Amino acid sequence: MRSVNLKRSICPITNLLDIVGDKWTLIVIRDLFLGKRRYAEFINSKEKIPTNILADRLTRIEEFDLVTKIPYQTNPLRFEYSLTEKGKALEPVLNEMAKWGLRHVKGTKLFPKVLPET
Amino acid sequence: MRSVNLKRSICPITNLLDIVGDKWTLIVIRDLFLGKRRYAEFINSKEKIPTNILADRLTRIEEFDLVTKIPYQTNPLRFEYSLTEKGKALEPVLNEMAKWGLRHVKGTKLFPKVLPET
Repeated sequence: MRSVNLKRSICPITNLLDIVGDKWTLIVIRDLFLGKRRYAEFINSKEKIPTNILADRLTRIEEFDLVTKIPYQTNPLRFEYSLTEKGKALEPVLNEMAKWGLRHVKGTKLFPKVLPET
Repeated sequence: MRSVNLKRSICPITNLLDIVGDKWTLIVIRDLFLGKRRYAEFINSKEKIPTNILADRLTRIEEFDLVTKIPYQTNPLRFEYSLTEKGKALEPVLNEMAKWGLRHVKGTKLFPKVLPET
């Protein structure tokens, strides 16, 4: 497991940002909270994450123990991702972000939960 | 005033990230919550924000109405920055980030409040 090593400072906010502080990671984590689990589901989100960025971010958050993956298909091998306890603990952060956005950015609306594919 | 125009999606989290979703902006906003107001104070933070990035981020968050600036000195002209109501409304987001970091990144500690310079 990878750790952030307090490289910029010992501030807890800084260290969270060193893991998820970019324009894409928290969008993938939002998708996981919405119920998405598969590569194709993340790719299909409205924000149109580029596939190379998605692959990079999934690997990265797995290294930081925010998600785990399990295979759901072989040949070709495909994985489903789900949040770990450490990942799920980001829920209050995302909830407060959503509240702020709904209040301060006109026209925003929460996305609906997604039912799992089988 | 600048607006984000829902350019990636209508998701409130995405739109918050389009304003503050990088490795530096929320660190400057954290500093403002700690009581820092002046350019030199932001520069002196442990994270060592590069001056060009600081200048860019302060301009950007002013355009998005998260901070206002007032001159405290002329010749050379210098400004003090402070959070607007919209900026102050990010406090629960930062609080939840700090809680997560304290819990999940070993060795993190909150920075103390800063007394204003006169």
